[in-house]
Amino acid sequence: MSDLDASSTIGGLGEAGLLAEVFTRFADAAPFCTPVALGPGDDAAYVRTSAGVVVTTDTMVRGRDWNDAWSSPSDVGAKVVTQNLADVAAMGGVGTALLVTLVAPPSTTLSWVNDLAGGIAEVAARAGVRVAGGDLSSSDGEVSVSATALGELPAGVASPVLRSGARPTDVWAVSGGLGRSAAGLEVLRRSEAGWFPPQEHAGVSAAWVGYHCRPDPDLSQGPAAARAGASSLIDISDGLVRDAHRVASASRVHIRLQSSLVAPHLNAVARVLGLESAWECVFHGGEEHVLLGSFAPASVPPGWTVVGGGRAVDDGDPQVWLDGAVASPGGWDHFAP
Amino acid sequence: MSDLDASSTIGGLGEAGLLAEVFTRFADAAPFCTPVALGPGDDAAYVRTSAGVVVTTDTMVRGRDWNDAWSSPSDVGAKVVTQNLADVAAMGGVGTALLVTLVAPPSTTLSWVNDLAGGIAEVAARAGVRVAGGDLSSSDGEVSVSATALGELPAGVASPVLRSGARPTDVWAVSGGLGRSAAGLEVLRRSEAGWFPPQEHAGVSAAWVGYHCRPDPDLSQGPAAARAGASSLIDISDGLVRDAHRVASASRVHIRLQSSLVAPHLNAVARVLGLESAWECVFHGGEEHVLLGSFAPASVPPGWTVVGGGRAVDDGDPQVWLDGAVASPGGWDHFAP
Repeated sequence: MSDLDASSTIGGLGEAGLLAEVFTRFADAAPFCTPVALGPGDDAAYVRTSAGVVVTTDTMVRGRDWNDAWSSPSDVGAKVVTQNLADVAAMGGVGTALLVTLVAPPSTTLSWVNDLAGGIAEVAARAGVRVAGGDLSSSDGEVSVSATALGELPAGVASPVLRSGARPTDVWAVSGGLGRSAAGLEVLRRSEAGWFPPQEHAGVSAAWVGYHCRPDPDLSQGPAAARAGASSLIDISDGLVRDAHRVASASRVHIRLQSSLVAPHLNAVARVLGLESAWECVFHGGEEHVLLGSFAPASVPPGWTVVGGGRAVDDGDPQVWLDGAVASPGGWDHFAP
Repeated sequence: MSDLDASSTIGGLGEAGLLAEVFTRFADAAPFCTPVALGPGDDAAYVRTSAGVVVTTDTMVRGRDWNDAWSSPSDVGAKVVTQNLADVAAMGGVGTALLVTLVAPPSTTLSWVNDLAGGIAEVAARAGVRVAGGDLSSSDGEVSVSATALGELPAGVASPVLRSGARPTDVWAVSGGLGRSAAGLEVLRRSEAGWFPPQEHAGVSAAWVGYHCRPDPDLSQGPAAARAGASSLIDISDGLVRDAHRVASASRVHIRLQSSLVAPHLNAVARVLGLESAWECVFHGGEEHVLLGSFAPASVPPGWTVVGGGRAVDDGDPQVWLDGAVASPGGWDHFAP
């Protein structure tokens, strides 16, 4: 259907036409060795599996979770898939299949939808995941993109890694950088107010903006952590301290973070955006999508950065401590006033 | 958290508060014998399974897929779950777990969300399905509710029943009533214009309206059809003729429907709404969520109504025929102009 005018609207195409157009983008997104047995195009998809399936869903809403001025439709598609696959990784799992839902007004252009589908297909292909189905629904104006990711546990991992398994004697480590997504968002916000990074920081600033719009965490670190014996794992989506707090509560342990252990991340952001922003980005910045895990001290996987230790809860509620003081969760809340 | 004022908004509660409130509604929705091993409350759910998982997703948008004047939040929750489980049934599967996503503005009341969750929990419990997770996202005003349903094939059924398996020699049958949902919608539309059904038709009219707002097809007919050897199955969500056309195309067979075989349904609607509406409701009405299946003539399951026969495709495209003439698909298209 490549003879369609790219400015065609999805209202003009109709549902069947749009599906036919979009399916072609997903047909070869991943090789046949993936466990998807069927999909899309029937009432439901059928995903081959054994023992169990990891499943999660995440939605992005235009104007809330992305800004058209900063993110291309391809970025949005890539990000919603990455977010979901990061949640699968945070169970120790490997993604196998995706369902994708688009809610959009009939005036949406085919070109926009194709760009979105391209971003979805690119990340899916890189992760070896098939788009197995989804849904289309019309709206009066708002646009949202949802994905549901399915996954399986890798060979040698018998059960998912939960938030509730951390022990007081564990050390805490992260699988990648911190503060990049939030620093990118801050660069975008300041640039709206006319500020631009000095020439010597233009490169790192652009990289942060790129990571904010299209994060690409190493998803293989989830299964790697599970094989290394991680006692807990969480996807850092709402900020290190806030997500650490969730694990602390679920596991009934204190988590003691040390800023000196993440000094390279703090210094990198501080040089461009100042120390206060650096602190905020590294400890409270959302959408980083690297993993926070707890491990026996000798079992931290290669490439992970230790960010702190633990402590048993004697009385009261489990807390996250930062340099010896209780840290307020902060971070992102969709519905906070 | 039952001491919360029912007029609290979800913006005031925050995400964690809302989740804590809503999770209690789902905690006992289904007994422990269901295959859900974990969920909700972690990065992802984990659903025990063997061989494979049936998975589907469906979204309802306020003002498009439901009208607040006609449907309660509980109706919406019940309907989105039923739609998804009907798609699982249309693969021959049995629902096991649900993910539910709500996109709503922060001004949404807790009372509204609790009513929605109540409808979801009720249908989930009746179907023996656990709510294993989901997502919450804020919007600037629009409200949408999505569900992803997971399911498994029942014992004795080795593979899902597809749209593509029908044979020219099969007969075609439906698992329940036809035209009820569309007749209910028509009653609601006419009542807006000041028309009300005569007293002797008030009961059946109310039943149609009830079925439109809260359809309750017999979901066990999907697995029953699979065990009976159905060669194809589809959930009638967009109209009998339109959905039959999808199966005809996928299976490369003609489908020949006979109106005399559905005369009771036609007559019931015609008595209240007239013959033209009856024809439209029975053959093109959407959201019925009963199943259309193809079977060897001796294998139609008990309780199913035969609606027609098949024919091999000699040349040209497979068609749906109604009383000997090619029927235009009609039915519902989300994006049709």
